[in-house]
Amino acid sequence: MEADGDDAAPPGAAVTPSAEFPTLGDADRAALGRIGDHWRAPRHPGDLPVDPTLGRRDNQPRPTQLGRLAPIDMFTVAEADELVAGGAAAQPDSRAGRAVARARRALVGPPLTSSSVADERMRKLVALPVLSSDLLSSVAYGPEAMLAVLVLAGSAALGLALPLAALLAVLMVAVGVSYRQTIPAYPHGAGSYIVAGDNLGRTAGLAAAAGLILDYVLTVSVSVAAGVHAVTSALPALTRWAVPLGVLVIVVLLAGNLRGVRAAGNLFVLPTYAFLVALSVVLAVGYAKAAARGFAPVPPPAVPAAEGLGLLLVLRAFSSGAVSMTGIEAVSNAVPAFRPTEWRNARTTLGWMVAMLVTLFAGLVGLIHLDGLAPRADQTLLSQLGRVTFPTGPGYAILQATTALILLLAANTAFNGFPRLLFFMARDGHAPRRFLHMGDRLAFSNGLVALAVVAAVVLVAFGGHTESLIPLYAVGVFLAFTLSQSGMVAHWWRRRGGGWRRRLAVNAVGATLSGLVLVTAAVAKFTEGAWVVVLAVPLLVLLFRRIHRHYATLARALALHPPPPAPPVEGEELPQQVRHLVVVPVARLNRASLRALAYATSLGQPTLAVHIAPEEAEADRFRDQWRAWGDHLRLETIVSPYRAVIGPLAHYLAALRAASPDLTLTVIVPEVVLRRRRYRLLHSRAEQRLRAALRALPGVVVTSVPVHVPR
Amino acid sequence: MEADGDDAAPPGAAVTPSAEFPTLGDADRAALGRIGDHWRAPRHPGDLPVDPTLGRRDNQPRPTQLGRLAPIDMFTVAEADELVAGGAAAQPDSRAGRAVARARRALVGPPLTSSSVADERMRKLVALPVLSSDLLSSVAYGPEAMLAVLVLAGSAALGLALPLAALLAVLMVAVGVSYRQTIPAYPHGAGSYIVAGDNLGRTAGLAAAAGLILDYVLTVSVSVAAGVHAVTSALPALTRWAVPLGVLVIVVLLAGNLRGVRAAGNLFVLPTYAFLVALSVVLAVGYAKAAARGFAPVPPPAVPAAEGLGLLLVLRAFSSGAVSMTGIEAVSNAVPAFRPTEWRNARTTLGWMVAMLVTLFAGLVGLIHLDGLAPRADQTLLSQLGRVTFPTGPGYAILQATTALILLLAANTAFNGFPRLLFFMARDGHAPRRFLHMGDRLAFSNGLVALAVVAAVVLVAFGGHTESLIPLYAVGVFLAFTLSQSGMVAHWWRRRGGGWRRRLAVNAVGATLSGLVLVTAAVAKFTEGAWVVVLAVPLLVLLFRRIHRHYATLARALALHPPPPAPPVEGEELPQQVRHLVVVPVARLNRASLRALAYATSLGQPTLAVHIAPEEAEADRFRDQWRAWGDHLRLETIVSPYRAVIGPLAHYLAALRAASPDLTLTVIVPEVVLRRRRYRLLHSRAEQRLRAALRALPGVVVTSVPVHVPR
Repeated sequence: MEADGDDAAPPGAAVTPSAEFPTLGDADRAALGRIGDHWRAPRHPGDLPVDPTLGRRDNQPRPTQLGRLAPIDMFTVAEADELVAGGAAAQPDSRAGRAVARARRALVGPPLTSSSVADERMRKLVALPVLSSDLLSSVAYGPEAMLAVLVLAGSAALGLALPLAALLAVLMVAVGVSYRQTIPAYPHGAGSYIVAGDNLGRTAGLAAAAGLILDYVLTVSVSVAAGVHAVTSALPALTRWAVPLGVLVIVVLLAGNLRGVRAAGNLFVLPTYAFLVALSVVLAVGYAKAAARGFAPVPPPAVPAAEGLGLLLVLRAFSSGAVSMTGIEAVSNAVPAFRPTEWRNARTTLGWMVAMLVTLFAGLVGLIHLDGLAPRADQTLLSQLGRVTFPTGPGYAILQATTALILLLAANTAFNGFPRLLFFMARDGHAPRRFLHMGDRLAFSNGLVALAVVAAVVLVAFGGHTESLIPLYAVGVFLAFTLSQSGMVAHWWRRRGGGWRRRLAVNAVGATLSGLVLVTAAVAKFTEGAWVVVLAVPLLVLLFRRIHRHYATLARALALHPPPPAPPVEGEELPQQVRHLVVVPVARLNRASLRALAYATSLGQPTLAVHIAPEEAEADRFRDQWRAWGDHLRLETIVSPYRAVIGPLAHYLAALRAASPDLTLTVIVPEVVLRRRRYRLLHSRAEQRLRAALRALPGVVVTSVPVHVPR
Repeated sequence: MEADGDDAAPPGAAVTPSAEFPTLGDADRAALGRIGDHWRAPRHPGDLPVDPTLGRRDNQPRPTQLGRLAPIDMFTVAEADELVAGGAAAQPDSRAGRAVARARRALVGPPLTSSSVADERMRKLVALPVLSSDLLSSVAYGPEAMLAVLVLAGSAALGLALPLAALLAVLMVAVGVSYRQTIPAYPHGAGSYIVAGDNLGRTAGLAAAAGLILDYVLTVSVSVAAGVHAVTSALPALTRWAVPLGVLVIVVLLAGNLRGVRAAGNLFVLPTYAFLVALSVVLAVGYAKAAARGFAPVPPPAVPAAEGLGLLLVLRAFSSGAVSMTGIEAVSNAVPAFRPTEWRNARTTLGWMVAMLVTLFAGLVGLIHLDGLAPRADQTLLSQLGRVTFPTGPGYAILQATTALILLLAANTAFNGFPRLLFFMARDGHAPRRFLHMGDRLAFSNGLVALAVVAAVVLVAFGGHTESLIPLYAVGVFLAFTLSQSGMVAHWWRRRGGGWRRRLAVNAVGATLSGLVLVTAAVAKFTEGAWVVVLAVPLLVLLFRRIHRHYATLARALALHPPPPAPPVEGEELPQQVRHLVVVPVARLNRASLRALAYATSLGQPTLAVHIAPEEAEADRFRDQWRAWGDHLRLETIVSPYRAVIGPLAHYLAALRAASPDLTLTVIVPEVVLRRRRYRLLHSRAEQRLRAALRALPGVVVTSVPVHVPR
């Protein structure tokens, strides 16, 4: 199985900062050589006028003119023949820049180099709380959700909880085993997106991804809202601050995660273990008391039946109980965040987690049955259990506090999974490429920020009342489960390695059970809100495909090998093909425009100056000044009687290109750079407007010659 | 007097589109020649590769690649040796562009050439309604404002209205005569800003301008709100739409004014004359009835005195009545909008206006006295007068309707004055230069839009209840009056031409009376809101001076003659001084980067390629690809272990410049141009970010080589 796993790993499946720089394919590489063969430089310029290695010296220059950019302690000599850009050597130049840098450092910590990727790994004992808070926290509401449906058929139906819990335990074990099988098969991160995409095709993968993305966002919003609600129930004075508090929690989670994987892990170790301990004590004390009375169940309070006990009701109860499984996905997605051997540690951690989940879930359902508890509107089952177990002492308060805390931290699992999912999607071109970028703490900052923003928007939009979003959960998650496990079935079917029948069977059971839950949840909860997911998943898939199509078109257009079907309009890809005409628009003669003219002339290419005049008289005046200067360059004046400047200039350039389509026009504009931003309002920013107008024109290169003004 | 007027006109005082292109001074011109003498082009490039005159041909090329820019019917042969950019030849290329162009045309009309400046002049009969609606509309509330103060001392005090009206008539005549004297002295537009600035110094001019700017904005907000209020009083169902209605009126006024001077005039002729006729009929019928009873005054209803009849009360009544004079400034500011001979027509129009104002004001006060009317809370005096005069028939309704309409149109006067004032201020560098630009309908579009936006914001901020702003009016206006007339006193004193004593006396009387009203208004209404003006005027003056200082610094830095005290960092102003190093940042090798490399190489200057790698391994891979290409250019790789790209690159360039400060670095970046804006989200826009980062660096020129992608 291990060898099999390593084989299956696609070569580029590792999470690496180099993913932003894809390697060239063989065809492209060959084309590159052919293009190089035809490369003719028109003149052979002499040596460079400056040593580009900067003398590999150690006394680093510290340029301080870059305003908000922190100066970088660059240019330390590496063993190789290249420069290395070190950390920030000093504070940025501007006051705002310094403040931002300081706040950033305090919140996020110092930057980490790419080579510390390996260091930022999690021990199993750290990974367990980081990745399991979502999964384990759901036992706080899973049993309750199931019993709340059963009790609709009267208190007698509560007895069905035990067989259903057994069935759910089977489901948990089946899904758990399935993921255990997936991890070594995909040791570089084996989310549903990759497994379903690899084995069932792109659309299946994207559907799984869409389901997971919805799930991640909902996890954050709902968990944070529920956690804050738990706090505000205890401290009602805070109720009116619930939404700001929720946003604050999201910001804290974001900051913790921007600090990097390990730092985030440390933040979350204690509360998760506290919750585990508290719940274990509840179970131990509860079962000890039950043992003392010979495991005789207390009869539950009589509740009248609201509906008949039909199959649909049982299925609804089953699918409601299944929300306890949300979060099981986290480990297989985060395999590369483990210490080596990654897949082995991940698999072990997953095993622990499933074992704990089954124990806690089954233990809780059993204890609730033994104590004869039924769902009540005013108190959660866990709270009732706490009161029964700890009639006195601080036990009850501790249980409630740790429950509230772990609900808040459950959101953190999404902060682990979401950016990784987007990284893998972006690598395939299904998500914006910026999700490939690792921030200076080796976290996928863009993905983290995106999740925090969307979740905060959902939280604020629902005014903190996100309970109604809980039904949406199960659909997205079980869509991903079903697709992932069906994918594993296809995987084993195709490979037929040792023991494939057993493995296929395990995954097939998991897929069938998950699929059943998916259909039940989608149908039974359609009107409760599941329709949103049913609608959103195909729309998201469509969006991802659109994004992919755009990147594919772009890649085709920019590819080096065989000419693309629609070649770019600019054909010049060899120096000898470029025919220059330099155009300098001049509005008035001053130092700035003379600098642009000098720069243009110094390039040694044919040069033309253009002046746009609003009136004939002004044109004459300008030509007169031009002669006073010495008439060093050909000047063309255009009278623009409607006083527009940008339009006529752009159309004149277009006409020049039309007259001679193989020309490359270089438009050289002086750009007066003002030190203070507020003074920009006083200028027409003609340079920027011209640049925007000329963007659409092929073969027109725009060059800004900066002229810095002291104030 | 006429000759005197022409002499006094500063040469550049005309409103001309060429004001955006100031002429060079003698010192600059001489310096230009000296610089030209040292101009050495390093190589003499041959002829231009394309005919820049485009063959002066008549078959115009119609480039259609400019998206939103409408293609321009350019290049018709002019008699002179330059091109002329004609009107739009066709619809813009993109759908959005076409829609905007069509809406614009429908709202604003076809563009007007600069040479039609002379055509866009007003006949006197058109100028009268355009410029007088503000002035004349104020008689609708001026008498009422005065009597409302007097009645505080009981109905007996109402008898003081007649002497006060006489005094105000004297004031009106004095100010009117003063402005009549100003118009020929400043035939190119003689607003308080220019007159006060010319004769009393810059600060006085700016204070007058600040007062007028506040007045113009308030005029629009208050008149529109009052007009809408009159409408909603008649049709209470519209009350809840008052604010949107007001904004709509402002938009209509803006559109009308963007259409240009003459078109706006036509829009306003009818209502103003209708108001004049309605008011004249009221006076004629009223006095006829009074004559029938032998001019015996009806005793006013008994009103108990609320305060004693002191000097302050009389002064307050006087200054309240003086609001009838707001708007008198309009004519002298708009002299150039008249047909030639401009100043003569303007003066005649002003004469008519003052005559009408005095007649209407005095007539109304007299008739109110004869009919024994006193201010009432539930009805305006004009409305009472209408009911007395027209007990039956549609006369009353017509009077009220025309009153409401002229109040709405009074706002239009501000749309005439405000952009002109800002034009003059911008020409002197006291306001942003964009206010110099005439739109394609020869209107100062930027000024019009600025006024509309600020007035709409004030209207919305006060929820349409702008009555409380009325006290602010008088202070700003009379500040401008006082400064303008004091300026004229200084003017005559300095010149001492024929009849200067008489003229000085006339202006001195006007200045003294205006000053008295100013002080009275500022003191008596200080707590009512005048403190805002007292505070805002110095702040605005400070702002204008700041703006002027910025432009002056800039002009010094860019001036051609003697080296500025703080010279720009980039010293290269002659081609032979420029030492090139071309730097091409390359992230990956594809068509886009090869095009940038080819372009860079074709310039024939020393060239260096730079690659920023996140890891050592990626750097090795890239160097390998570079060799596969043929290693045509020197490549420098920089490992950025913190994965930042822009920062290290910017600091590398800064270090190169630091190592060799006389270098001009040209950074050449490929810019992938996407057809659709929405796809930009999918790209990191490194080109823009690099450009922003490099802005602050002196001697770094950024060149974007566009690569157009079909989709």
